[in-house]
Amino acid sequence: MYWMKQKGSNAERELVRMFWNKKWACCRVAGSGSAPQALPDLLAGNTLRRLAIECKATGKEKQRISVSQAKQLIKFSQMFGAEPWIGIRFDREEWYFLMLDDMKTEKGYSISLSNAKLKGLIFDELIGIFRQERLEAFS
Amino acid sequence: MYWMKQKGSNAERELVRMFWNKKWACCRVAGSGSAPQALPDLLAGNTLRRLAIECKATGKEKQRISVSQAKQLIKFSQMFGAEPWIGIRFDREEWYFLMLDDMKTEKGYSISLSNAKLKGLIFDELIGIFRQERLEAFS
Repeated sequence: MYWMKQKGSNAERELVRMFWNKKWACCRVAGSGSAPQALPDLLAGNTLRRLAIECKATGKEKQRISVSQAKQLIKFSQMFGAEPWIGIRFDREEWYFLMLDDMKTEKGYSISLSNAKLKGLIFDELIGIFRQERLEAFS
Repeated sequence: MYWMKQKGSNAERELVRMFWNKKWACCRVAGSGSAPQALPDLLAGNTLRRLAIECKATGKEKQRISVSQAKQLIKFSQMFGAEPWIGIRFDREEWYFLMLDDMKTEKGYSISLSNAKLKGLIFDELIGIFRQERLEAFS
């Protein structure tokens, strides 16, 4: 259990550094796993956008999000004025960022690595670098 | 030293609850005192505004902010897209919220309790309740 928490914390810290490296401000939220309020793991922002991110690091081929976690992420994001995102770091893969809609199943929320690759955004896409490249293609 | 940290943490938690009670989302930032990046103590937001708050709880009659703390608060706030605020909880007083400009001295940033009462906003004013009342007076 301690090892799993450590793995999650390390993944979160890695993502925080990635945001700062791209000139986004980013921080881990204190007590995100235990506070009475609905809290995401990370908040990231630039002058235009704010992201509330629930982070998962896993060695499995599939990642699940509980319905209550999903609800809390949506609630916080709506109140704070942020976009709700799930960030998943499968072992030996880069980060994939998913909207909850893309993880919806009959029973709740989950996604396999292969579907995360199909439906998810990689980090550069999440922060809009990919989108700028695509826009340039049209100009 | 431990006692001072505890006092600060308790004050931060009190302020977090005050925001949630007024339907603002608010969280404490992990590692705000120790992270390599410039981090505020609290982030609060609603659909319109985002506040980055450096919190101080003191038994003295005067509160000082170091120049480096002030710079970090400004830097984070600009990057994240938030308003930078200093929240001060003098013993047996309510919270006062100050802009750094109102704390500027020749040597750095500081403010006395009496000046905080003159120049600071109380909590309801910070989140705009006072402003709405004033606007109503004009209509």
